Amino acid sequence: MNSAAFKHRPESEDAYLVDADHLQIRFHAAKDDLQSVELIYGDPYWTIPNASGETTFAYSHVPMVKISTGETHDHWEVTIGGPYRREQYLFAVMDQDGNREVFGDRGLRADTEENRLTMTNYFRIPYFHVIDMVQTPEWVKDTVWYQIFPERFANGDRSNDPAGTKPWRPEDHPGREDFYGGDLQGVLNHLDDLQELGVNGLYFCPVFTASSNHKYDTIDYLAIDPAFGDKALFAHLVTEAHRRGMKVMLDAVFNHMGYESMQWQDVLRNGAQSRFADWFHIHEFPLTPFRDPIKGEGEPQFDTFGFEPHMPKLNTANPEVQAYLLEVATYWIREFDIDAWRLDVANEVDHHFWKQFYTAVTAVKPDFYVLGEVWHSSQSWLNGDEFSGVMNYAYTQLVMDHFLTGEQSAGQMLARLADQLMLYRDQTNQVMLNMLDSHDTARILTLAGDNFDLALQTLAFVFVQTGAPCIYYGTEMGMDGANDPDDRRPMDWSQLGGLQWQRVAALIHMRRSHARILGRGATHFELTATGLIRVRRGSSHGIEAYFNTTKTAVKVDATALLEQGFTASELQPNGFVIAEY
Amino acid sequence: MNSAAFKHRPESEDAYLVDADHLQIRFHAAKDDLQSVELIYGDPYWTIPNASGETTFAYSHVPMVKISTGETHDHWEVTIGGPYRREQYLFAVMDQDGNREVFGDRGLRADTEENRLTMTNYFRIPYFHVIDMVQTPEWVKDTVWYQIFPERFANGDRSNDPAGTKPWRPEDHPGREDFYGGDLQGVLNHLDDLQELGVNGLYFCPVFTASSNHKYDTIDYLAIDPAFGDKALFAHLVTEAHRRGMKVMLDAVFNHMGYESMQWQDVLRNGAQSRFADWFHIHEFPLTPFRDPIKGEGEPQFDTFGFEPHMPKLNTANPEVQAYLLEVATYWIREFDIDAWRLDVANEVDHHFWKQFYTAVTAVKPDFYVLGEVWHSSQSWLNGDEFSGVMNYAYTQLVMDHFLTGEQSAGQMLARLADQLMLYRDQTNQVMLNMLDSHDTARILTLAGDNFDLALQTLAFVFVQTGAPCIYYGTEMGMDGANDPDDRRPMDWSQLGGLQWQRVAALIHMRRSHARILGRGATHFELTATGLIRVRRGSSHGIEAYFNTTKTAVKVDATALLEQGFTASELQPNGFVIAEY
Repeated sequence: MNSAAFKHRPESEDAYLVDADHLQIRFHAAKDDLQSVELIYGDPYWTIPNASGETTFAYSHVPMVKISTGETHDHWEVTIGGPYRREQYLFAVMDQDGNREVFGDRGLRADTEENRLTMTNYFRIPYFHVIDMVQTPEWVKDTVWYQIFPERFANGDRSNDPAGTKPWRPEDHPGREDFYGGDLQGVLNHLDDLQELGVNGLYFCPVFTASSNHKYDTIDYLAIDPAFGDKALFAHLVTEAHRRGMKVMLDAVFNHMGYESMQWQDVLRNGAQSRFADWFHIHEFPLTPFRDPIKGEGEPQFDTFGFEPHMPKLNTANPEVQAYLLEVATYWIREFDIDAWRLDVANEVDHHFWKQFYTAVTAVKPDFYVLGEVWHSSQSWLNGDEFSGVMNYAYTQLVMDHFLTGEQSAGQMLARLADQLMLYRDQTNQVMLNMLDSHDTARILTLAGDNFDLALQTLAFVFVQTGAPCIYYGTEMGMDGANDPDDRRPMDWSQLGGLQWQRVAALIHMRRSHARILGRGATHFELTATGLIRVRRGSSHGIEAYFNTTKTAVKVDATALLEQGFTASELQPNGFVIAEY
Repeated sequence: MNSAAFKHRPESEDAYLVDADHLQIRFHAAKDDLQSVELIYGDPYWTIPNASGETTFAYSHVPMVKISTGETHDHWEVTIGGPYRREQYLFAVMDQDGNREVFGDRGLRADTEENRLTMTNYFRIPYFHVIDMVQTPEWVKDTVWYQIFPERFANGDRSNDPAGTKPWRPEDHPGREDFYGGDLQGVLNHLDDLQELGVNGLYFCPVFTASSNHKYDTIDYLAIDPAFGDKALFAHLVTEAHRRGMKVMLDAVFNHMGYESMQWQDVLRNGAQSRFADWFHIHEFPLTPFRDPIKGEGEPQFDTFGFEPHMPKLNTANPEVQAYLLEVATYWIREFDIDAWRLDVANEVDHHFWKQFYTAVTAVKPDFYVLGEVWHSSQSWLNGDEFSGVMNYAYTQLVMDHFLTGEQSAGQMLARLADQLMLYRDQTNQVMLNMLDSHDTARILTLAGDNFDLALQTLAFVFVQTGAPCIYYGTEMGMDGANDPDDRRPMDWSQLGGLQWQRVAALIHMRRSHARILGRGATHFELTATGLIRVRRGSSHGIEAYFNTTKTAVKVDATALLEQGFTASELQPNGFVIAEY
């Protein structure tokens, strides 16, 4: 028995309330090590007289189910109730040779009745506190997101174009400093198109006043960039989106401020005397010229995003900064009714601040969605009091590493995806943002070598996963593009309603019309004997999907809800079929 | 390589700030599996041109140290700085056969330069946020606690004795309902004795108005029980304790209220119409007669501590209850200057409340100590925003299971203690409350079969551990007693200054005069070839202690600071020797 490989962390994603009355328990053991795991459990105060008249703990037991296998571990799971809202539990394990042990809060012990009756051997959920339960917004589980880079989506108002605005040519390779005149009126003009496409969540890259075309260098968090429009227009846009059943997410850059912001300019002018000097992490004056340590110029005078002197890092431990940013955060909810914040470089801001942030925004709107930009594993932000979910790069990268680059086999991908799902509670996985590309990456079509079938197959795989899928503007128009700034070309509206558009729309329609299962159901992966990837969502019935990532056609028996390359029960390479079971 | 056994959780007790500039990193691998672990790390934005002119990550590396071996794992550790307050890291491991791999945020990968340069393979500490750092009160690391059960410590004022108070006979076996007249004046009268004993922290069992002799059934959290004294006396007692350099800790019972409390009585009288109805977890009226499900009487009408109808559980998710309890919590700090709260049944109260509690008490007194009663592993309470430490039963039980009952070997004990120390950050381990007995357990001397040498040897072992030791009143008088209520006998003042008292005082003196090392230093366990337990505290120099838990005398070469059964370089069974190295 490989007992060193046993893993279980109490009061974490391994033991949590799925609803007010039920506890989900996970246990991880080395792959193929155990033939069975039983959960031994009961109310810690439930003691009854035994045969000898002594009072002892009365436990129940239930088999755990091996729900998936990761790279190195089998994942076992079970859900139990708790009639008196308290549970203690331990794991009775049996290896392939029939050896038995119990594994609990004090480690491994022999599976004897005495050890099962020793209270200190048990892990605990001392009380089912609903107030501590991780709750995520239900509406996100029904959402297909659409990411808009406002400067490149559509130019609806030529009067606010920046000086030197270039002509709208989708085939351009934009430079870092180029402007194309995209704006909020452009989005408003195309809301009906987006509704027809089927998306019901709009995720806007920053819209606040800033110098650059990407607006990640905020000057004023309380103003719409004049090149994008004004507050009246934004208010109207939110109303019109809501009228169409679409939610609105804005992008907040709270890690750092823009160089041109009033606050940073004040510090540059007044140095240590500036009333904003403590708003940043300043180690030494004067602040200029900035010393870049990578260039061997010495120690930087202040902390920045990366080593970018024009993006000074905010001191979010300063109560004044906290108050200011929380006012920003709630202002756009209170006054404009936005539904979600996407938080830029969220991992580099302190947890203390994000807890205040979450409390503040959910006080205004209880089902508000908070999405953090974190590229690595994110357990410490996803315990119900900071973020609802994160941008799920860690998940979708695994998908691309198989479908697009072939860097890993289908089996490796499925194992690693199974491991990723074990990092978070089910209700968290359901509101992760699953995007294959964004303003920060090359476009999916380029990554697919301009093979639209392959891009759509990959997208379809993401659409049957746990987690809310997100489409980057232009994917439906068959747009390609390398890493930024090439991934930020002006939208190619000539393709609206075209063949590729129709296929993306059909995929979105499929996801949304089965959101109950695809947004909330259990997930089972399998590599079929014929080499297909099978994804099953739901339990006794639900959705199943097959993906052919091999080089030859493979037989499948299915009645397609949606398919690509599937005829006469044969699934072609780069094909998929989605069906009910 | 047993890679399934690798364990590391980012942003947890495995990766945390020890001070504003240093990160402590831990990694766990199966016992004897690896011959070396190296930490590969660097600032994630530190990219430099490589030989081919591409910009790549520039990493550093440092060997990790195998600091201890637990039941199933070796524990590896290293401390690193972070010049720009950001680090990413992964583990380069080599097994006994020389096979190498890297283990990081995306699992196990081949140890290739490409994998070392792939940013997503890295775990992250995105920024060194001091505001998120776990900070524990320095003074606790210098403290030897003394637990007082007020009704049994000393009767200093006969005028407030409850009706039917029994004569003060230390040889009594108290009944559950007996009163002996102990009070705060009694404590005040003996403060000089406690100072002479050497303790510098007084931990009081509840002193608020309640019906029972133990006062865990609070009637009024804002009043001193009249049988113990009044507020003026308590204020005087705190002042006098502080004057002697002693800290004062009170016991708060916030999980449930007493049956006789105004609030519960109001609910009993007015049912659903009571303005306190939502202060409790009530499922059904009428509330009486209480249905005990264990007796087969059906479902209880309200939640209680265990199934005790006279201890109704408080609804700490109710903002009115929160406000009331936070007022209580801060009142005794603001008005009486207490230094610490011990929180009864702390695990069954919600985390949400404890976070409010921690914020409130530390706002009044920044170095306030919050001690939770949790008998099981407690990571979810010990992240710097709920409790400072917990009552360390999980640790001391392991000590007793070897020293007192022999249920486990010395080697097993040391391995399991090493594992316990890996559950928490160093700064947390340093403020755990290490007590061998309390009002809730049999007395140490009874557990030692009334062998005072053995009891003192066990106590001495606890006194050289990481964590603040605590003595239960009467240990120094050589008092014994079985499980409660027998462990709550009236104090035996006839033994004051006696031989046993002197030995306990010497132990306290040793701990306090070496608090810098014993309160803060690193801990190393070893089982010597001769079968002795050796504990080393500190690094290049510090304190070392040997304990003979075998049945024969063993040679040791040491110059004793303090010893028992140590003569002519021979350590007798039940003996110990504590020395400097």
